[in-house]
Amino acid sequence: MHAGGLIPSEVHQPKDPGTEEAFMRAIVFEDWQKFPILKDVEVPTPGPGEVLLKVAGAGACHSDVAIYNFEKDTRGAVPPSFTLGHENSGWVEELGDGVTGVRPGDACLVYGPIGCGRCKACSRGQDTYCENAASMPYLGVGLGRDGGMAEYVTVPVRNLVPLGDADPIAAAPLADAGLTPYHAIKQALPHLNGGGKYALVIGLGGLGQIAVQILKALTGATVIATDTKEEAMRTAEAAGAITVPGGDGQAERIRELTGGRGVDAAFDFVGVAPTIKTAAAVMARQSKLTIVGIAGGSYEWSFFTTPYESQLTNTYWGTIEDLHEVVDMYKAGQITPEIERFSLDDGLEAYRRLEAGQLSGRAVIVPHGF
Amino acid sequence: MHAGGLIPSEVHQPKDPGTEEAFMRAIVFEDWQKFPILKDVEVPTPGPGEVLLKVAGAGACHSDVAIYNFEKDTRGAVPPSFTLGHENSGWVEELGDGVTGVRPGDACLVYGPIGCGRCKACSRGQDTYCENAASMPYLGVGLGRDGGMAEYVTVPVRNLVPLGDADPIAAAPLADAGLTPYHAIKQALPHLNGGGKYALVIGLGGLGQIAVQILKALTGATVIATDTKEEAMRTAEAAGAITVPGGDGQAERIRELTGGRGVDAAFDFVGVAPTIKTAAAVMARQSKLTIVGIAGGSYEWSFFTTPYESQLTNTYWGTIEDLHEVVDMYKAGQITPEIERFSLDDGLEAYRRLEAGQLSGRAVIVPHGF
Amino acid sequence: MHAGGLIPSEVHQPKDPGTEEAFMRAIVFEDWQKFPILKDVEVPTPGPGEVLLKVAGAGACHSDVAIYNFEKDTRGAVPPSFTLGHENSGWVEELGDGVTGVRPGDACLVYGPIGCGRCKACSRGQDTYCENAASMPYLGVGLGRDGGMAEYVTVPVRNLVPLGDADPIAAAPLADAGLTPYHAIKQALPHLNGGGKYALVIGLGGLGQIAVQILKALTGATVIATDTKEEAMRTAEAAGAITVPGGDGQAERIRELTGGRGVDAAFDFVGVAPTIKTAAAVMARQSKLTIVGIAGGSYEWSFFTTPYESQLTNTYWGTIEDLHEVVDMYKAGQITPEIERFSLDDGLEAYRRLEAGQLSGRAVIVPHGF
Amino acid sequence: MHAGGLIPSEVHQPKDPGTEEAFMRAIVFEDWQKFPILKDVEVPTPGPGEVLLKVAGAGACHSDVAIYNFEKDTRGAVPPSFTLGHENSGWVEELGDGVTGVRPGDACLVYGPIGCGRCKACSRGQDTYCENAASMPYLGVGLGRDGGMAEYVTVPVRNLVPLGDADPIAAAPLADAGLTPYHAIKQALPHLNGGGKYALVIGLGGLGQIAVQILKALTGATVIATDTKEEAMRTAEAAGAITVPGGDGQAERIRELTGGRGVDAAFDFVGVAPTIKTAAAVMARQSKLTIVGIAGGSYEWSFFTTPYESQLTNTYWGTIEDLHEVVDMYKAGQITPEIERFSLDDGLEAYRRLEAGQLSGRAVIVPHGF
Repeated sequence: MHAGGLIPSEVHQPKDPGTEEAFMRAIVFEDWQKFPILKDVEVPTPGPGEVLLKVAGAGACHSDVAIYNFEKDTRGAVPPSFTLGHENSGWVEELGDGVTGVRPGDACLVYGPIGCGRCKACSRGQDTYCENAASMPYLGVGLGRDGGMAEYVTVPVRNLVPLGDADPIAAAPLADAGLTPYHAIKQALPHLNGGGKYALVIGLGGLGQIAVQILKALTGATVIATDTKEEAMRTAEAAGAITVPGGDGQAERIRELTGGRGVDAAFDFVGVAPTIKTAAAVMARQSKLTIVGIAGGSYEWSFFTTPYESQLTNTYWGTIEDLHEVVDMYKAGQITPEIERFSLDDGLEAYRRLEAGQLSGRAVIVPHGF
Repeated sequence: MHAGGLIPSEVHQPKDPGTEEAFMRAIVFEDWQKFPILKDVEVPTPGPGEVLLKVAGAGACHSDVAIYNFEKDTRGAVPPSFTLGHENSGWVEELGDGVTGVRPGDACLVYGPIGCGRCKACSRGQDTYCENAASMPYLGVGLGRDGGMAEYVTVPVRNLVPLGDADPIAAAPLADAGLTPYHAIKQALPHLNGGGKYALVIGLGGLGQIAVQILKALTGATVIATDTKEEAMRTAEAAGAITVPGGDGQAERIRELTGGRGVDAAFDFVGVAPTIKTAAAVMARQSKLTIVGIAGGSYEWSFFTTPYESQLTNTYWGTIEDLHEVVDMYKAGQITPEIERFSLDDGLEAYRRLEAGQLSGRAVIVPHGF
Repeated sequence: MHAGGLIPSEVHQPKDPGTEEAFMRAIVFEDWQKFPILKDVEVPTPGPGEVLLKVAGAGACHSDVAIYNFEKDTRGAVPPSFTLGHENSGWVEELGDGVTGVRPGDACLVYGPIGCGRCKACSRGQDTYCENAASMPYLGVGLGRDGGMAEYVTVPVRNLVPLGDADPIAAAPLADAGLTPYHAIKQALPHLNGGGKYALVIGLGGLGQIAVQILKALTGATVIATDTKEEAMRTAEAAGAITVPGGDGQAERIRELTGGRGVDAAFDFVGVAPTIKTAAAVMARQSKLTIVGIAGGSYEWSFFTTPYESQLTNTYWGTIEDLHEVVDMYKAGQITPEIERFSLDDGLEAYRRLEAGQLSGRAVIVPHGF
Repeated sequence: MHAGGLIPSEVHQPKDPGTEEAFMRAIVFEDWQKFPILKDVEVPTPGPGEVLLKVAGAGACHSDVAIYNFEKDTRGAVPPSFTLGHENSGWVEELGDGVTGVRPGDACLVYGPIGCGRCKACSRGQDTYCENAASMPYLGVGLGRDGGMAEYVTVPVRNLVPLGDADPIAAAPLADAGLTPYHAIKQALPHLNGGGKYALVIGLGGLGQIAVQILKALTGATVIATDTKEEAMRTAEAAGAITVPGGDGQAERIRELTGGRGVDAAFDFVGVAPTIKTAAAVMARQSKLTIVGIAGGSYEWSFFTTPYESQLTNTYWGTIEDLHEVVDMYKAGQITPEIERFSLDDGLEAYRRLEAGQLSGRAVIVPHGF
């Protein structure tokens, strides 16, 4: 698994700098509610403080589907046109003005969010909560700004996390499917520190499966996981979780597994009203329920139906430092994303299968061969 | 103000131990939905590990009104008959079997909750969250077990917090009206640590006023306070709060005071649906909203109406260690409860005025003269 | 392993209450610098709030050796005469006055420290840091007050942690050899939370081996362990640690294992000057070095030899709540103390082997058959 | 006080961009162990991602004296030649390539440290702990790279903290004399949260005085302060501290003020062996002693002379987010640096008086009139 990172570096072939007409293929979101297309676009030039990356892998995410299916002016919508792909890895190809400290051929994972760079949140590497987001021309790489579903992509050097000799292709999904559960779990670790704790993971897609891996690696908690798909639950069990199927009596079974006291931390990667309700019904006192999935379900909170000091909150993506730590876990074998590789030419097929629910792992577009 | 504690100690007159027919007056909750009565009851005898206290002060609390107005079998109801009073202070009068470390005449504040004493929660002095509460014969002093609205009361020695030479009468309300906001605020201090923070207090009754005092003393936050009563807002302003009246545009005005970003911690001492909604509307990212008031209002929570990582939670009373720290603040002059003193004979009048909203401070029953 | 707890409960035979001349064997520390003796003493009677336990197991600890070898008036010395044994488990035999909530036959682990019960520290179940320790007649069970190296022992009911059906004999050492590393690690968990962390354990005796187990269970950190004994290092490796032998270049090898940055938390279970120096030499920035071993070695601290914000501290034993969580880990199979069982008649032999370094696990005295 | 920021903005006169021979005065450290000189240098040009600032104020710091007095190759030495000044404020004059979000005339405070910008520490805005510091050409603005003791200075836009309409001249010292104590205190706030806490400040120079202000504003702790200068103690008293003079019995007096239990957090802004020893002697259990002053004194630490779980650590400067919060406190009037203003022409005199101990406040060089 670790060979992948070395080869491209060894055979590093710079793109031809002399030609002005350099073009490349890219998967572009062109208009509201329109399926993306594969087309030729210009190879971008890194600006000051930026780097041009030769893309190793770009993960296809459910958020992409949401993005191209949005109606104009919907809350959270990102206006076209731009190249998709916010889960990216690659090799440094070219340095923009003023960039130091990285060398061509270095394998890196890309922190996707890009904020103003000057506010409190950005200063601590949490661009997701940029105070000036409203005045920014885009939210991040592949989110308003051209992303990694292409042969090359430019990113600010500050957004690179070095991968060393770890496989950059399998790493790509870590930029979101790894970072998001990692950040959510890290915020909840004080609730899971110590013996006799219980964690609950609801929704065993890409993020939920990695959440199980992270919880097993970083805590001593009993991890309970739930989904409607049998296969997803088998995968979670193989990673060490105890599973509880959905349906009647689900909350009762979960609470029973905790000896009646409830779970200390729950992570809902779905976020519809019924999953939030189930989670809320199994919380222990002084616990934390984090809604990660953005399905937007609502929950009727009241003092008397909430165990004392049980917290209800949400969260969004993570910080640059978190991503460094996700990479540390990946290198240590504590996180192993399950992926399906697609060439750039097959990239649209990846989105079709994603929409149809026909993927067994995260689809990663691999523009330069695998 | 500090003389009060010394005098009774100096003139300490033990109750006559030789007579078997020792009686005292007490305000007793006799039956569901029945106003309490003042009657003669036997002076209690401290059991093993308990102390008999000569009552200095007993605060009358809205919860008492709820208790005697409950219908049988209501959630949270505590069955009669028992002497009211869960905010108590007094002087040690007599030591039960096995008690050491306290001396007759010592002035003490009483930690009201009494749990099983053996579970995790009780082991850390948080009897409020006792895991075996359901199997306990009472919830605490004045809550199922006889309370301090009497000349004498027995309490486990573990529940005593020494007052030294501080006035025990004015201290009485600290046992609840001080401890509850203190505990809520202490849980939220990580959100208020640092420069440029904002706190919101909703509801400026006894607990809310003390909350303002605690926030001003323990944090550098700008404290915003709100109530429907003008006089209550004037008191909060005198304690250093900026006030915002209720009504149209309230949330907008609060958010404006924070420069648009919202408050880092909010404490709702009312807890009806409109106050929770107002608080939820003014929270900043990564903030904490704690509902303290038990009015039981509900709030429709959703991912998209909640600022990222803003937490919603509740809380109940506090720990023994918290109460020690409340007493430290009282001795330092950082908390000064506003009280109205009533003799035991006027105790029922105190409850009548409490129900009628005719008290300007906390009513404290003072059985032994003031 | 879990059968042991049930049998004594099923065949529960109360000690004969009618006879006044009840005697039992006990290992007693009689005088300064004198090896303990096995003698007949009266079966104790539980006082108010206390319980009489039929001893299941009593661990022999290096501190016991220190206790009976002390010269009079040495710092930390506990005056004779008393029965040894501060790592105790047993079955409830008899309830003292005012005790509720436990039943004869219940298997329990004993929290050894006994403080005043009224100060801040005791109120949160941290009797080890009792503010009134100087005025207490003893430090705890087997520490001034009669301990568990006998057929029966009395303990305050508050000091009991229920074992359910887990083996009480193997559990005995958890009361110290489990609780001490657990508490030390729990205080350092904020430094180990997240990916890419490193922990160091120095000294692989009873406490150090359990420290390795706890770190592996509760964190995702790479655990580095060191000792001078080959066999101890093999045991630690089997528990998942990477080991580094003592001697020249030790610190360099440890730092190399961390990629140069140093360890995030270190636990020194020896505490002589050379081990503290080694640990201090391998700390990362913003790390925590906890000296647990009480050998009393000194270390010359200076601003320039300390990585930024690396903390140096000590710690002592743990809290009641910690012990509950240690039992949770024991029940979950996350902590498995290695023990050697001795009958009460062979108890002195256990101390002889302990002094001679001839034990491969913790010696547990089992007064009632195993 | 708040007018200062507005006037230069209103009368904003850009430096003449057409002339190539633009020169300015600067205070330059030219060679090891040589007093700095005032000379003419070229006005710098902002690089990509940088901004040219018209200097409002530049604080003269004891570290500057250390810098120009160092022998070559001393630990911590920064090689000449460069313009001094690492406590800077100014108005945006010109934007380098790729800079957005700031406008000419904006008043800003400058975060001095400059790390690699790519490591974990830099990603969270803590350039002080940059993992690649050894490979960087300088440590920060005025620390290897040209500083603010000049008419103009260039800084990365990421290092700017907006001052709004607050006085930028008095703000200059906040960049170090404010940020350093703020960061040290913020790390210790968990030890000061709550009632009945005690804090100790040793050394009442610029940093220590601001430390007293911060502790009074952000905590409810009793603040004890000590120095050898009477005048400095009077200033600290005016800010709300209780002072204890140095000399015999100092530690005893401090401990007495805490009722015998010791202080919960101490900050030593001197850092010689005697001050560390005094601080160590007055710590409470579970407290934190932070050595901030870099005098490099050593302290012989041992298990038995350290109260349980009292931490000993050091710290260095702060984070960008911290500086934002320092500015929040400055705007709120919670921090008011005492300064003495000097023109650029009198700048060397400022250093002479600093060396001679003849300054009553922080010397701030004001190049453009005050």
